[in-house]
Amino acid sequence: MFRNQYDTDVTTWSPAGRLFQVEYAMEAVKQGSAAIGLRSKTHVVLACVNKANSELSSHQRKIFKVDDHIGVAIAGLTADGRVLSRYMRSECINYGYTYESPLPVGRLVVQLADKAQVCTQRSWKRPYGVGLLVAGLDESGAHLYYNCPSGNYFEYQAFAIGSRSQAAKTYLERKFEKFPESSRDDLVKDALFAIRETLQGEKLTSSVCTIAVVGVGEAFNILDQETVQALINEFEISGEEAPTNESAAEQAGGDADSAPDQSGAAAEGEAAPMDI
Amino acid sequence: MFRNQYDTDVTTWSPAGRLFQVEYAMEAVKQGSAAIGLRSKTHVVLACVNKANSELSSHQRKIFKVDDHIGVAIAGLTADGRVLSRYMRSECINYGYTYESPLPVGRLVVQLADKAQVCTQRSWKRPYGVGLLVAGLDESGAHLYYNCPSGNYFEYQAFAIGSRSQAAKTYLERKFEKFPESSRDDLVKDALFAIRETLQGEKLTSSVCTIAVVGVGEAFNILDQETVQALINEFEISGEEAPTNESAAEQAGGDADSAPDQSGAAAEGEAAPMDI
Amino acid sequence: MFRNQYDTDVTTWSPAGRLFQVEYAMEAVKQGSAAIGLRSKTHVVLACVNKANSELSSHQRKIFKVDDHIGVAIAGLTADGRVLSRYMRSECINYGYTYESPLPVGRLVVQLADKAQVCTQRSWKRPYGVGLLVAGLDESGAHLYYNCPSGNYFEYQAFAIGSRSQAAKTYLERKFEKFPESSRDDLVKDALFAIRETLQGEKLTSSVCTIAVVGVGEAFNILDQETVQALINEFEISGEEAPTNESAAEQAGGDADSAPDQSGAAAEGEAAPMDI
Amino acid sequence: MFRNQYDTDVTTWSPAGRLFQVEYAMEAVKQGSAAIGLRSKTHVVLACVNKANSELSSHQRKIFKVDDHIGVAIAGLTADGRVLSRYMRSECINYGYTYESPLPVGRLVVQLADKAQVCTQRSWKRPYGVGLLVAGLDESGAHLYYNCPSGNYFEYQAFAIGSRSQAAKTYLERKFEKFPESSRDDLVKDALFAIRETLQGEKLTSSVCTIAVVGVGEAFNILDQETVQALINEFEISGEEAPTNESAAEQAGGDADSAPDQSGAAAEGEAAPMDI
Amino acid sequence: MFRNQYDTDVTTWSPAGRLFQVEYAMEAVKQGSAAIGLRSKTHVVLACVNKANSELSSHQRKIFKVDDHIGVAIAGLTADGRVLSRYMRSECINYGYTYESPLPVGRLVVQLADKAQVCTQRSWKRPYGVGLLVAGLDESGAHLYYNCPSGNYFEYQAFAIGSRSQAAKTYLERKFEKFPESSRDDLVKDALFAIRETLQGEKLTSSVCTIAVVGVGEAFNILDQETVQALINEFEISGEEAPTNESAAEQAGGDADSAPDQSGAAAEGEAAPMDI
Amino acid sequence: MFRNQYDTDVTTWSPAGRLFQVEYAMEAVKQGSAAIGLRSKTHVVLACVNKANSELSSHQRKIFKVDDHIGVAIAGLTADGRVLSRYMRSECINYGYTYESPLPVGRLVVQLADKAQVCTQRSWKRPYGVGLLVAGLDESGAHLYYNCPSGNYFEYQAFAIGSRSQAAKTYLERKFEKFPESSRDDLVKDALFAIRETLQGEKLTSSVCTIAVVGVGEAFNILDQETVQALINEFEISGEEAPTNESAAEQAGGDADSAPDQSGAAAEGEAAPMDI
Amino acid sequence: MFRNQYDTDVTTWSPAGRLFQVEYAMEAVKQGSAAIGLRSKTHVVLACVNKANSELSSHQRKIFKVDDHIGVAIAGLTADGRVLSRYMRSECINYGYTYESPLPVGRLVVQLADKAQVCTQRSWKRPYGVGLLVAGLDESGAHLYYNCPSGNYFEYQAFAIGSRSQAAKTYLERKFEKFPESSRDDLVKDALFAIRETLQGEKLTSSVCTIAVVGVGEAFNILDQETVQALINEFEISGEEAPTNESAAEQAGGDADSAPDQSGAAAEGEAAPMDI
Repeated sequence: MFRNQYDTDVTTWSPAGRLFQVEYAMEAVKQGSAAIGLRSKTHVVLACVNKANSELSSHQRKIFKVDDHIGVAIAGLTADGRVLSRYMRSECINYGYTYESPLPVGRLVVQLADKAQVCTQRSWKRPYGVGLLVAGLDESGAHLYYNCPSGNYFEYQAFAIGSRSQAAKTYLERKFEKFPESSRDDLVKDALFAIRETLQGEKLTSSVCTIAVVGVGEAFNILDQETVQALINEFEISGEEAPTNESAAEQAGGDADSAPDQSGAAAEGEAAPMDI
Repeated sequence: MFRNQYDTDVTTWSPAGRLFQVEYAMEAVKQGSAAIGLRSKTHVVLACVNKANSELSSHQRKIFKVDDHIGVAIAGLTADGRVLSRYMRSECINYGYTYESPLPVGRLVVQLADKAQVCTQRSWKRPYGVGLLVAGLDESGAHLYYNCPSGNYFEYQAFAIGSRSQAAKTYLERKFEKFPESSRDDLVKDALFAIRETLQGEKLTSSVCTIAVVGVGEAFNILDQETVQALINEFEISGEEAPTNESAAEQAGGDADSAPDQSGAAAEGEAAPMDI
Repeated sequence: MFRNQYDTDVTTWSPAGRLFQVEYAMEAVKQGSAAIGLRSKTHVVLACVNKANSELSSHQRKIFKVDDHIGVAIAGLTADGRVLSRYMRSECINYGYTYESPLPVGRLVVQLADKAQVCTQRSWKRPYGVGLLVAGLDESGAHLYYNCPSGNYFEYQAFAIGSRSQAAKTYLERKFEKFPESSRDDLVKDALFAIRETLQGEKLTSSVCTIAVVGVGEAFNILDQETVQALINEFEISGEEAPTNESAAEQAGGDADSAPDQSGAAAEGEAAPMDI
Repeated sequence: MFRNQYDTDVTTWSPAGRLFQVEYAMEAVKQGSAAIGLRSKTHVVLACVNKANSELSSHQRKIFKVDDHIGVAIAGLTADGRVLSRYMRSECINYGYTYESPLPVGRLVVQLADKAQVCTQRSWKRPYGVGLLVAGLDESGAHLYYNCPSGNYFEYQAFAIGSRSQAAKTYLERKFEKFPESSRDDLVKDALFAIRETLQGEKLTSSVCTIAVVGVGEAFNILDQETVQALINEFEISGEEAPTNESAAEQAGGDADSAPDQSGAAAEGEAAPMDI
Repeated sequence: MFRNQYDTDVTTWSPAGRLFQVEYAMEAVKQGSAAIGLRSKTHVVLACVNKANSELSSHQRKIFKVDDHIGVAIAGLTADGRVLSRYMRSECINYGYTYESPLPVGRLVVQLADKAQVCTQRSWKRPYGVGLLVAGLDESGAHLYYNCPSGNYFEYQAFAIGSRSQAAKTYLERKFEKFPESSRDDLVKDALFAIRETLQGEKLTSSVCTIAVVGVGEAFNILDQETVQALINEFEISGEEAPTNESAAEQAGGDADSAPDQSGAAAEGEAAPMDI
Repeated sequence: MFRNQYDTDVTTWSPAGRLFQVEYAMEAVKQGSAAIGLRSKTHVVLACVNKANSELSSHQRKIFKVDDHIGVAIAGLTADGRVLSRYMRSECINYGYTYESPLPVGRLVVQLADKAQVCTQRSWKRPYGVGLLVAGLDESGAHLYYNCPSGNYFEYQAFAIGSRSQAAKTYLERKFEKFPESSRDDLVKDALFAIRETLQGEKLTSSVCTIAVVGVGEAFNILDQETVQALINEFEISGEEAPTNESAAEQAGGDADSAPDQSGAAAEGEAAPMDI
Repeated sequence: MFRNQYDTDVTTWSPAGRLFQVEYAMEAVKQGSAAIGLRSKTHVVLACVNKANSELSSHQRKIFKVDDHIGVAIAGLTADGRVLSRYMRSECINYGYTYESPLPVGRLVVQLADKAQVCTQRSWKRPYGVGLLVAGLDESGAHLYYNCPSGNYFEYQAFAIGSRSQAAKTYLERKFEKFPESSRDDLVKDALFAIRETLQGEKLTSSVCTIAVVGVGEAFNILDQETVQALINEFEISGEEAPTNESAAEQAGGDADSAPDQSGAAAEGEAAPMDI
């Protein structure tokens, strides 16, 4: 498993000008269960796959409310994600208290990115192992950002992260041009379709996914399971057209995360990987 | 025993996006003696196997009262568990003093998880080597959480951790659907049955296990040995149906912790492993 | 990938008197998408290639306004660049508040260089992985500086950094003698021509590049996409004379960054390189 | 002497979830000269073997008075033990000054264990290399605890630690059921018999052992040599029934510390091991 | 490129009593472009070769004014040199403010040397990679010092540092006896001749060198390019007697820095060396 | 010279529960020139061998007065010993100032031992490399302690440390039973005889040894050379009975420090060992 | 050049109880140019060889005035020596200001030794690489001390340190018995003779050595070059009896520092050793 001598310390550059430890942390995002986001001019929808640890437990929460106008979906190290989302919550409260107006989404995203950047430049820390899709609504409209372990952030019309997210991205790319004018309900429908793409033939039910919405006149809220199931039934999504092998192959070629996946599986017999 | 170059430092990511030191700390939980928890709508029962160090000593305590409405059962490094449970006790006292109401269980669990997360992101610390089953009752009802060395936590209907916990988990999975409506005494009975599954044919007596209960109208309390023995006798649990080889085999295949177990045994001749 | 024993720590000199970690950080600049700058006596123009992460996202911003009279274009680690440009912004505000006059460009550039130098002399940090083209106008005229990860800075008439920048540099070297007397619009036109040189046959459109201008009577501003497209159409730049193979070969021989490029590509199958 | 890559740093987990440095520190306890403790309902007796450095010196003290109601016997690194027993003394004084009542034994033992736990979770420290048998009397009766380098503690009816302690443990296990009702003098007698078991045929005299007692109406005190010799004579212990080879063999098989012993002896020609 | 185990840490002595990291930092001075200094009783002249990064940029400044009576020429890591010269400037200002008289040159040189020494005795720093020729005039006359990365300093009649400085040193050694009585203009002429020796056949023009003078009645000033060109023309230096192969050979044998030069060149294909 | 992986860091335990770095520091004591101490009920005598660095120098002082009632003789690293004896002096002064009575010897010895223990539990320090024989007189009589680098201390009737101390120890063991009742002068005589044993046939003169006495009615004082020579002459010690080969052989077998001695000698050609 | 695993860290003991890093620092003293000192009852003379860096420079100063009654000559790392002599100067000033009397020489020497000792017990520092001959006059007479990198100091009648100092030591040992009664001028003469012994046949002139004197009625002063030349002429020292090969051979055998010398010379082709 030896790669090179430049990849064990976050403050060490490789000869080709790369920071491998940051890239490896980005791998942790790819290993997490999938999360997707998409937005119209007025609404943002977040969705994620509920990872079932066991029949005995509730699923691990992957979508968090930050404030009435902001929410976040994570993929990767859940504990890191929880710590970061509490940081966001605290920033929103402080801003609201000081300025008596909601914290602009873009501003929060930059603060979050700076917090991540610091962890890429101190030898006694490690980069966060989590990707965050930040959905928010402010005076400049609806926003969807992706915050990456590297300290970068990007604004998206629609995006998908986590394991098998390539299939969802392919779906979103086919449809995104109509999103800006989509109604809230169409966005939710597309979110459900995109999530189904990541399930590899598993049946889409309200128990395997979580959906959250924020928009004009609608505070950030996570839809309850009944509502989601009703939507699934209504849209007749469930079970129709299983993901084809092509899209799976496309994925393998597309982002090359299948190799890590295999080594992960091989290693699984030795020590259980963290829940990410 | 060499694995790879990414697994000796908690701040080093592997190329596949894993933090091996955190996973190894999770192994310590698997090596500890078993602990189980299960809950109905009104009660939570914790149970653990008493590890006999020697005839001369009392057994090592693995269940601690945190507050009147919260208790904890641990598996793994006992010293780490003791330090964390005292932290929980202190948080409960402070909250009660400030707000004159009991600390909500979920809130305490998040604080505990954050304390664990910090130890996964500092190069001069190590992750805690202990898993905690937190049982509590608050305004939102009875709760059972599992806090993991990774800084994650999960809410469970019923769960088992520690060595040979797979057999208990199998038992709980067969029965958990009826737990929400179970009476307090049925929960205790199921706890005793689940514990027996982890004993590998050893006779279940009140000296090999500890049982604690918290519920509506019942502060967290550890049942005294006579009560437990009376229950065992009443339920006629003891000795009936020894754990079959199948379930043992299932366990070996199921969670693959038998390999570490063997290497642990092989190493035992060299230096005595800690009491976990 | 082993080179030598002197290249993993930024505080270690090689026997030949080199600091390899600083040089490797300079490689990160070469891997970033291209940025160019050029100036006349009265105006400075910055231009950069917009790296398309995905159809779904807006492009990553690489040009930032610092103050009314100063702006910056970056190549390399975007997160580092963002942190540094906010530092610059904050210095400009403080200076303006104290002295009620704009911060001289050269002075800001020296402060920026000193901040970078510190990171080359502390064992627990790493050099910044970003190059900055700083464009500004002050009492002494229009200025264009290049700030390097090593803590050096240089004043230029025109310069290009980032991947495939050699072709743009070649173009600028052929033309730079006329720049001092160029009109604002001629500068913009030359910027567009230079950017096209780095595109390797890709068609130049307003979506693949960003242009910013600062000059006498014109505060630093990023041109909107329509304006840029109009300019491209007006100048009839798009598509005419694709970059020849000669210039590509010249580039490979000229700055030898093709070798790292290849190793980068070979490694790409393993872990996705950061967005730089 | 190479074992594995996980055993040189106290903050590094092994893949099997063990902290080898803590286990190695526990080995130091096994290498120390033997100490034993036993208690009735009213009295606790501590005893230890006096290690003769040389004819010229008094023996190294291994039993310390902490307060009128608490005393301690150590095995392992004497310097670590001395530092810890002074810590205990200081805690007792502070408690007595604040609450005007003696510090409960169990509470002191927990504080001691926490102090030890901290040394197992900081990379720049090492675990203490000493085991402590804490004897005390408080409102809840007579207590005997064993504090281990791992930060664990155990309550015992009777226990023995240090080199060749297995033989003493075997003796104590045969007899411990009658200890709760034993008279003070019978406890002392059993302590002397247990100590003799660890001597491997050496004659038991008052100069090779130290005895201390704490109990109802008797402050913690170390018996003077004449008293001990008188007891030995009275009980006619000395010389009668030399430890048989069987028990030695039993010991070798029982705790497997003979291997370290040999390597220790082999290494003795190189550098003198510390006095432990 | 492995040398030995004593040369990666500045706080590690080699068995022969050498600090290799300090010596390697001194190599950085040898790799920098050449700088020379020479003095009469009343004047000091500094000169350096302008390294042309590119046609597009102004050359990197290597001569800095510190105060009216002090200036400095550097060879080696420019960023380190800039930081140190600002330190000098600040010391001069503070002294002038406190004592209302110029800071004596020798005193400043000692402070500078002490700042360098500290960096040779802390494990988390690195020695500065720059040599400084300090020219100054104070009550005790004209002075020329050389400050070395090792924390040493030397007073010189004339000296040359940087790449190919051996040829200049040879020239200066032939002529230095007449320097004390030289006129200002003769000093400048000798400076130009010495600089030409380092050019290896390249034509001496005002664009390839910078000249600065400080002396009685003349504050430290850098001569403008026209003045220098006029002097070159006047003295008819340019082009006459190209440096012979003998002097080049002499150099190679004399200071043996050609070996590092070659390894430097060989390595150049991999990663661009810093501008020094 | 490689031993194992556990012996380069003072905070690393070996698998057998040893701290090698502490043991190696104890070797430094064995390499120092010999020091001996012996006491009666009323007096303590310290003696040491004067190591002749050169004819040109006075010998290195190895006996220090701490206070009127305490003195110390050292073997090992002289610089460490000097620092520790000044610490002792300062403690005595502070105690005397606060309590207006002399600091009890045993108390000072414990403080000294604790200072040494701290250096065995911090990764960024090293154990002191010096052994101290502390001689003192207080209300409880005359005392002789040995403080070891491990943080241990021992009370002795008589003891010898340093190179070839085994021969002196053998002498002292033959005679120590009469020491408690010895007169001051007999103690001094025995000290001289013991010192002679360590000289390996070298003639005992007042220049090769230093003698100090503290006792009832006699403040700690170092005897002047004339007095010592007079005593040597009076007792007719010098030259009579050279140490036999037997005792030398006994020594080699007895403490096995001859092996390190040889390796030390072999290494001497490379780098001069410190004066210890 | 690999020696062993114990010689790269100043806080690591070797198995034989040596601190190699301290010994290596002592090698730096041996590599420095020679310095000698000698004293009568009333005067102390320091002398050193002036190392000629180049014709162009003044020689490196190796003798420093500390106060009117104290001066110092150094061999080894000049920068370290300069820092230490300024520390001494500052201590003298502070003492004089507080007590209105000169600081006793012995006291200053102890403070200096303690400063050196600290650098041998911290992992993030390195031992000073310089030896100091301290000459001083106080109420107790004239003193000559040698302070070593190990933190030791010695009082000498006469001593020589640095490269080829063995020949000077041999000379001084032949003559030292008459030094106490020597006149000031005889001491100076002997100093010059001793210096000549270190020159290996080079002619002794006033330019190759520096002489300083402190004594009754004569503040510490460095003799000017004319005075020294006059003395050389007067004593007719120069050139008479060149050092014989015998003394050179004696030296090689005597202190074995020729081996490091050779390795030093061999290495010289790689990187220039520091000026020491």
